[in-house]
Amino acid sequence: MDERIREHAELLVDWSARIEAGDDVVLSVEEDAHDLAVAVAEVLGERGANVVTTYDSAEVSRAYLRAHDDDFEAPDHELALYENADSVLALRGGRNTYATADVDGETRQAVSRAKQPVREARLATDWVLTVHPTRSLAQQAGMSYEAYRDFVYDAVLRDWESLAEEMQELKEILDAASEVRLVSAGTDLTMSIEGRTAVNSAASVAYDSHNLPSGEVFTAPADTEGTVHFDVPMTIEGSRVRDVTLEFADGEVVDYAADVGEAAIADVLDTDEGARRLGELGIGMNRGIDRVTENILFDEKMGDTVHLALGRAYEACLPEGESGNDSAVHVDLITDVSEDSRIEVDGEVVQRNGRFRWEDGFESA
Amino acid sequence: MDERIREHAELLVDWSARIEAGDDVVLSVEEDAHDLAVAVAEVLGERGANVVTTYDSAEVSRAYLRAHDDDFEAPDHELALYENADSVLALRGGRNTYATADVDGETRQAVSRAKQPVREARLATDWVLTVHPTRSLAQQAGMSYEAYRDFVYDAVLRDWESLAEEMQELKEILDAASEVRLVSAGTDLTMSIEGRTAVNSAASVAYDSHNLPSGEVFTAPADTEGTVHFDVPMTIEGSRVRDVTLEFADGEVVDYAADVGEAAIADVLDTDEGARRLGELGIGMNRGIDRVTENILFDEKMGDTVHLALGRAYEACLPEGESGNDSAVHVDLITDVSEDSRIEVDGEVVQRNGRFRWEDGFESA
Repeated sequence: MDERIREHAELLVDWSARIEAGDDVVLSVEEDAHDLAVAVAEVLGERGANVVTTYDSAEVSRAYLRAHDDDFEAPDHELALYENADSVLALRGGRNTYATADVDGETRQAVSRAKQPVREARLATDWVLTVHPTRSLAQQAGMSYEAYRDFVYDAVLRDWESLAEEMQELKEILDAASEVRLVSAGTDLTMSIEGRTAVNSAASVAYDSHNLPSGEVFTAPADTEGTVHFDVPMTIEGSRVRDVTLEFADGEVVDYAADVGEAAIADVLDTDEGARRLGELGIGMNRGIDRVTENILFDEKMGDTVHLALGRAYEACLPEGESGNDSAVHVDLITDVSEDSRIEVDGEVVQRNGRFRWEDGFESA
Repeated sequence: MDERIREHAELLVDWSARIEAGDDVVLSVEEDAHDLAVAVAEVLGERGANVVTTYDSAEVSRAYLRAHDDDFEAPDHELALYENADSVLALRGGRNTYATADVDGETRQAVSRAKQPVREARLATDWVLTVHPTRSLAQQAGMSYEAYRDFVYDAVLRDWESLAEEMQELKEILDAASEVRLVSAGTDLTMSIEGRTAVNSAASVAYDSHNLPSGEVFTAPADTEGTVHFDVPMTIEGSRVRDVTLEFADGEVVDYAADVGEAAIADVLDTDEGARRLGELGIGMNRGIDRVTENILFDEKMGDTVHLALGRAYEACLPEGESGNDSAVHVDLITDVSEDSRIEVDGEVVQRNGRFRWEDGFESA
């Protein structure tokens, strides 16, 4: 076994999920994430944690969803599993990123709505999502398997404490601010972040950060106005989308277009009320991730990018007792801010053309 | 996909588990049972059942068990999953039948003891265990993959209603009887079955039968006396055993020997008090299974064989309120009764050399 798989497993269990003896862990394994599952199980055994391993197969889901009449429910046994779990470790790594591409949008929405209580129970745990490099993901990235493995481990096996310090600076600026404006080619968007708390996403539940790798600072915007163009290609629920434009008024999407995958965007927007509002503004700061690989877990963390999510806001960004944007979905879209771009916070430029104001090469005007 | 996989899935869901709309099902999938899992998921979707899919990987279990300090517990989340499930469909079909052969006996016993509440919760559901033909199982059977698939589907895709009628005759004889005596080469064993109820195991929970394929009549013996020799080779918890002899006095094993795998037998017997007593007497009646394949699910159902299990008795065989033999284990051993053998029930020969007394060719003396 590649020694990096073992290092990945230790980082996931210890740094990311902070698992201790006696913790009840759900280990969710996609079809080709077997080798990482074996390594994680070994570390969980060493730590004295308990484990239930679930099989998160896209082909099994597809068969079930296509055969069902769409009158879904949140089953007691699934709820009970997650309500009694301390942590959920989700190991992504399938065999075909389009395995569920022929499940129709209405079915996706129906199951997503019905299973909201299950999702909430899962999100209430110390959950962490990570990726095991598979041939399918290498293909999606347009890379050889060998090069893709190097890419994944370069992004994952980092000095997270050091990156956390770097990101703290931006978090403090956002926490103190009222408004963010994003300006780029085809984009001029204003969002309120008044009273919201930014998350220093350092790939650990101790930082309210649930992705490994991570490396972003994100918050929950409101009252969005203007237009945004997303030029980074994406795959949403099995469908490819590219060059998406969203127009906002009074916080809601009032118009949309996409060069590729407009129907997938329409399906997302139709899920529920909250799906038409933003739940997240994220600023990618992981410069270890140096290319788009059509995988949101990596792409949204890439340095010199900004992402916005339609749908559900993360609780960690909201003041105690305040509920942010609620939805059955959370769909990220990404835009490149490395050129002809700026991020303004309360009228001051914090980043221009990908350089932050505390970095060498920042141009103040 | 082989059309027989779809037929297998329908038989499992409809005939065996009797699953209905709204049922909460746990679908347990071994490493190479993926294709059957997809087919079962499709049928569950059509029936409107709910499903949680677990990954029952021997390699994941091995890594966890070897790393753990043996102070296991029955975790809340796993208990909650099974306590809230209506059915468990376990799809066997791994990649290596010896994948856990280097997990030591003490660890197996420790986890088996600690997880007894989980096992009880699972056994309280309408559970069914079946087998998807894999290359590993073909290898264990000494067969080509293609021939092994034919073997499995010949055993599984049967007219179960008709076989159930055939088995009813033996069940009625056993239900009315007090004592069974088994005589064969190296075997002369007497068991009480007073007050016990035999199960007509017709591969359906409607018959208290939990294996697909099935085709046996079994009951819960007590007060075993004498010696039994098991000449059918077996694999117990990853270890091969062959030519096991057990000697019973006052219902308990007082001596044992095996040409191969004696340590595995010793581990089983040491699990707990109940592991030294018999929990099951089963008479194989599935003549569709015509060869030993070193897989208990098939071997014990084979016509012209008898099997006895050390450990836990099945509740279905016991009078209301009476607890039978209790143990963390249930380990079957098989003996061929096709030659120089007889089964006596209350002193009358019911089977001789594999022929039942209601069959052509039965010799009354």
